[in-house]
Amino acid sequence: MIVTVTLNPALDVTYRVDRVVPGASHRVSAVTAVAGGKGVNVASVLTGLGVPVVAAGLLGGDTGARLSADLSGRRIRHDFARCAGETRRSVTVVSESDGEATVFNEPGPNVSPAEWTAFLAHLRDLLQEVGARVVVVSGSLPRGVPAHACGEVVLLARETGALTIVDTSGDALGGALPSGPDVVKPNRDELAEVTGLELAPGPESLVSGAGLLQDRGAHDVLVSSGSDGLVFVPSRTAGPAQEAGSGRPTASRAWLPTPLSGNPTGAGDAAVAAVAFGLSTGSPPERWLAEAVAWSAAAVLHPLAGQVRSDDVDRLRPQVLVAPQNRRASTSSMPRSAS
Amino acid sequence: MIVTVTLNPALDVTYRVDRVVPGASHRVSAVTAVAGGKGVNVASVLTGLGVPVVAAGLLGGDTGARLSADLSGRRIRHDFARCAGETRRSVTVVSESDGEATVFNEPGPNVSPAEWTAFLAHLRDLLQEVGARVVVVSGSLPRGVPAHACGEVVLLARETGALTIVDTSGDALGGALPSGPDVVKPNRDELAEVTGLELAPGPESLVSGAGLLQDRGAHDVLVSSGSDGLVFVPSRTAGPAQEAGSGRPTASRAWLPTPLSGNPTGAGDAAVAAVAFGLSTGSPPERWLAEAVAWSAAAVLHPLAGQVRSDDVDRLRPQVLVAPQNRRASTSSMPRSAS
Repeated sequence: MIVTVTLNPALDVTYRVDRVVPGASHRVSAVTAVAGGKGVNVASVLTGLGVPVVAAGLLGGDTGARLSADLSGRRIRHDFARCAGETRRSVTVVSESDGEATVFNEPGPNVSPAEWTAFLAHLRDLLQEVGARVVVVSGSLPRGVPAHACGEVVLLARETGALTIVDTSGDALGGALPSGPDVVKPNRDELAEVTGLELAPGPESLVSGAGLLQDRGAHDVLVSSGSDGLVFVPSRTAGPAQEAGSGRPTASRAWLPTPLSGNPTGAGDAAVAAVAFGLSTGSPPERWLAEAVAWSAAAVLHPLAGQVRSDDVDRLRPQVLVAPQNRRASTSSMPRSAS
Repeated sequence: MIVTVTLNPALDVTYRVDRVVPGASHRVSAVTAVAGGKGVNVASVLTGLGVPVVAAGLLGGDTGARLSADLSGRRIRHDFARCAGETRRSVTVVSESDGEATVFNEPGPNVSPAEWTAFLAHLRDLLQEVGARVVVVSGSLPRGVPAHACGEVVLLARETGALTIVDTSGDALGGALPSGPDVVKPNRDELAEVTGLELAPGPESLVSGAGLLQDRGAHDVLVSSGSDGLVFVPSRTAGPAQEAGSGRPTASRAWLPTPLSGNPTGAGDAAVAAVAFGLSTGSPPERWLAEAVAWSAAAVLHPLAGQVRSDDVDRLRPQVLVAPQNRRASTSSMPRSAS
């Protein structure tokens, strides 16, 4: 069983208007609202492909109840702990005239220390009850929880025998690293932010950046980088393959030869879903790396985040290329402050 | 007892952001959500001043439940009929940098004919149960209800022995007039829209415009016009005072000598609340006209719509001026098509 943890989920609301004009009053022609947040999207992708998963995390207020009802309606199994504050909405206003999206992200609840402790107890019970093999911790942190909140979830999951994947950014990612997550999945911008590196274009720089996350405690690192695909840097302590003479395991890259156009929102979540599925079945990285590219690309083809069609995955899977990935020359990964 | 009817209420949500930039992602620093809609504001003002009132209308979905809970929390008595569709939100995004407000109005529910019939039955029961003396019908119509929906409410209220005040605009106002509401309260722009007249600046033109509403069925007409105050044109059939020689009752204007600055949202609702209170106590128009100016001005001084402080009303009441108001010369109220 896979459990996804979304500490700061959102009800994703979409408004359609003619055009966004600051200071004006807009008539919204259509409203949609679906459960969102990165871990919720991961659970949605897995559910859609028939993989057993439970969505967990923290929910509160009317918006939390509505998010929960949406998950039930979509038959996504879920078991969230409650908090007193109101779960946030993320309102995306789409201009019909040019397709431009203007986004307003509510701050979300302020979680008390007691609520955080209760959440961890709730999660421990859940992981044991369902026999979790993989725990995915995704997305931003709500106010009030410790900066190493994702790290606490990693430690808890490990105690119950589960593998862990962390997909977050900034201080939340930095705070998770010392707990030694089995996989971390930043995208290029998130990797640059958390390492403080100026990352040169192309996949080479990502290997060096990933190494800095490993210096801070991460095991495997998977970096998503749009049409560059996914760069996988295996843990220094675990992998059997070693770069000749360097003592380092070999990094690899998987990508599609022809980039797809579509909706990139949720493509990273689909990649994480594939990795979680791979880890849960014990398949080796060289297997789930290509699978993650196929799932991610299938997500781009779907207009809604958290949705993947299995026939798209089947069609894209044979197209994925995988090759060893060199580290970039050390001179070109400079700290940002020196640039 | 006063009953306010809000057929298309809204949960008024306010977001605070640094600045609204189309196409950008915005971090919302603060969120507030209160029950809104013109009739709800009227009930809020009356409740705040200790006048017995029940807020009625149509509510649906999670947002309807939240609106209802907010009314309960503010101790505003309410008894809404239910509909299957979701009550709308009105999201106002306030830019902290310049105070500019950008508004997104959701469309609200689509009311079925069966729901409309059930609403009228519900309202009839309510009016009889509470012994309503005055019924206020305010705001826009939800999709699906007949264009003469406000007129149907007027007829229903009259059958139960209540006086009626209609405060709406456009086709909803036009559709209410043939039912002969006791008072209609357009503002200047709404009067121009429903009559098709170009209204010259100043209060004179409003008397002519009001006459057109009376030609179509309205009794008393009260026009709000910002710092011009309120212009009252009594029914041709009821008023004792007649303009010399013309056979027309005398119009009058009430206003404050020094305009106030503040939040004009809800000022019209406060004026309607004062009129409803006046009608419910049987006080004559010359009494409630001045009171309406004082309540309306007190609403401008309050940062939140639907809120009036009684000490502000007490302080402003003696400052209100009332004088007869002439009709404007007929040559200057031309149909828009001729201008």
